[in-house]
Amino acid sequence: MTTLEMLKRINAMAEFNRWCGIEVTAAEPGVVEIRMPWRSEVGQYSGFLHAGLIGSLIDTACGFAAATVAGPNVLASHFSVNCLRPAVGQKFIARARVVKSGKTQVFTGCDLFAVDSAGEKLVANGQTLLTVVQAG
Amino acid sequence: MTTLEMLKRINAMAEFNRWCGIEVTAAEPGVVEIRMPWRSEVGQYSGFLHAGLIGSLIDTACGFAAATVAGPNVLASHFSVNCLRPAVGQKFIARARVVKSGKTQVFTGCDLFAVDSAGEKLVANGQTLLTVVQAG
Amino acid sequence: MTTLEMLKRINAMAEFNRWCGIEVTAAEPGVVEIRMPWRSEVGQYSGFLHAGLIGSLIDTACGFAAATVAGPNVLASHFSVNCLRPAVGQKFIARARVVKSGKTQVFTGCDLFAVDSAGEKLVANGQTLLTVVQAG
Amino acid sequence: MTTLEMLKRINAMAEFNRWCGIEVTAAEPGVVEIRMPWRSEVGQYSGFLHAGLIGSLIDTACGFAAATVAGPNVLASHFSVNCLRPAVGQKFIARARVVKSGKTQVFTGCDLFAVDSAGEKLVANGQTLLTVVQAG
Repeated sequence: MTTLEMLKRINAMAEFNRWCGIEVTAAEPGVVEIRMPWRSEVGQYSGFLHAGLIGSLIDTACGFAAATVAGPNVLASHFSVNCLRPAVGQKFIARARVVKSGKTQVFTGCDLFAVDSAGEKLVANGQTLLTVVQAG
Repeated sequence: MTTLEMLKRINAMAEFNRWCGIEVTAAEPGVVEIRMPWRSEVGQYSGFLHAGLIGSLIDTACGFAAATVAGPNVLASHFSVNCLRPAVGQKFIARARVVKSGKTQVFTGCDLFAVDSAGEKLVANGQTLLTVVQAG
Repeated sequence: MTTLEMLKRINAMAEFNRWCGIEVTAAEPGVVEIRMPWRSEVGQYSGFLHAGLIGSLIDTACGFAAATVAGPNVLASHFSVNCLRPAVGQKFIARARVVKSGKTQVFTGCDLFAVDSAGEKLVANGQTLLTVVQAG
Repeated sequence: MTTLEMLKRINAMAEFNRWCGIEVTAAEPGVVEIRMPWRSEVGQYSGFLHAGLIGSLIDTACGFAAATVAGPNVLASHFSVNCLRPAVGQKFIARARVVKSGKTQVFTGCDLFAVDSAGEKLVANGQTLLTVVQAG
C-alpha cells in the first residue's frame, strides 16, 4: 500500500471528511495535498468558506503530512490558523508539509488556496503540532 | 431585538452552523454559550469529534462573543486551539468570553466541554483574534 | 525543599532570568506567580516593555507552573502571546496556571499585568505547551 | 534613507535590542534578516538560548519585515513560536517575511537558525500578526 493509498483509506474512515468531500490528491514523505469543492453548506453567514472549515482543511492536511513520516497514530495537540483573505472559490486546496519530526512530536505547516477561473489564491495558512501516540 | 436574538439570527444565516446543529443558548455582553449535539457525521476516523469541528465551535463562539460588544461586523484574523482530551460526548458546549475589546480588534477566549451522563468535561480551549470591519 | 524553593533555584540558574530581575513570588501545585521590575533596558523603541520580554515572562511563568506538577524536566514546544494593551508600568506580574497535565504534555495559560500607582492592569495573555522530557 | 538604514535606526532605538546585540543584516521589501551572537546571559538554566529570546528574535524580525511594507508604525498583536530543536549555537539568524499585508494588518512568518562551525540549523519558527497604527 502506498502512502497515498494509506491516506485515502484514513480519509474515507472519517465521516466528517466524507461529508466535506475532502479528497487526498497527492502524498510524498513529509508533503500532502488535499482538495475540497465549494458548496453552500460549508459557508458562513456571508457566503465565504466558514473559518471552522478553513481550520478543518488545514488540520486535516497537517495530520496527513505527519502520518507520512510518523504513521497514522498521530493526534493534534495544538493548531492555529491565519485568515489572510476572504475564502471564496469553486474549490480549495490545502498543501501541508512536515517542518520537524521527532520521536514524540511532529511540527507541520500548511497553506490553503482558493481556486476559481482566475487561478489559485492563498487565503489562509496555519500549523499543527501533533503528538505521536505510543502503541498500547 | 436582544443580543441573544441577534446571535440566533446570525447563526441561522450560516449554512454550516445549521448543518452542525449549533444553537446559541446564552449571551450577555462579552459572554456567549453555544451547543452542538454529537452525531457520527462530525467524527474523525476513530469516532471522536473532528478537530476541525472543535475549531469550528471555538471560532463560532468567540465570534459571537465579539459580536456582543462590537456588533456583527467582525471577522476572525487568527484562531488557535488546544486539544486537551479526546472529545467524546453526547453533546458539546463552547463558552467564550471577550478578553479585550478595542476599536479595531477584539481578543477572545473559549473553553469547550463534552457532556455525557457523568457531567461536563473540559476537552479543548482556544482563542480568536477578530478584526472589526469598518462599514464602507 | 518546597515547590517555591525549587522554582527559585531553577530561576537562579538561568542567566537571562537573573539579568531580567525575574523573581518567583508564589507557587502552589499548578499555579505560579513571577515578578519583574521595569527598567529602560527591557524597553522597545517607544519605551514600552519589549514584546520579546512579554513573551519571556509568559513562557517563564508557564514553564514554572508546569514544573509544579510535572517536575523540572519540561521544555516549551509552542508558546503564543496576545499583546492586549501597551505594556507600561513600574513592574510586571505574570500569573500562570496548568490547564491540563498529561504524561507527555502539559498545557498552561498565563496573564500578564503591569503595575503602577493606579494598580494592576492586564496587558497581555498567552499560553505554553510543554513536553515532559523522559529521564535518561 | 534605505529600508535597511531605517531598520538599523529603529533597532538602535530599542534598548533591549542593543543589550541583546541584535543587528539588522539584510532588508528588502517584505524580507528581513537579523543576527544575534550567543553569550551566556541569553541562556536558560541548561545553557540553551532562552525561549523568551527565541521569541524576541522572531518577533523583532517579523516586526521589521512588516515595517518594510507598512512603515514603522506597526505593533504586534499576536505572536507564536515553535521550539523545534535545542537552540544552541555561536550565533542566531532570524529570517522573516511578509505573508500578507493589508490596510490594517500585516501577517508575517519567520525561521530561526542556530549557527556553529557545522553550518546553519533550523531551531525554531514562528509568526507575528501586526496592526498598522493609524497616525493620530
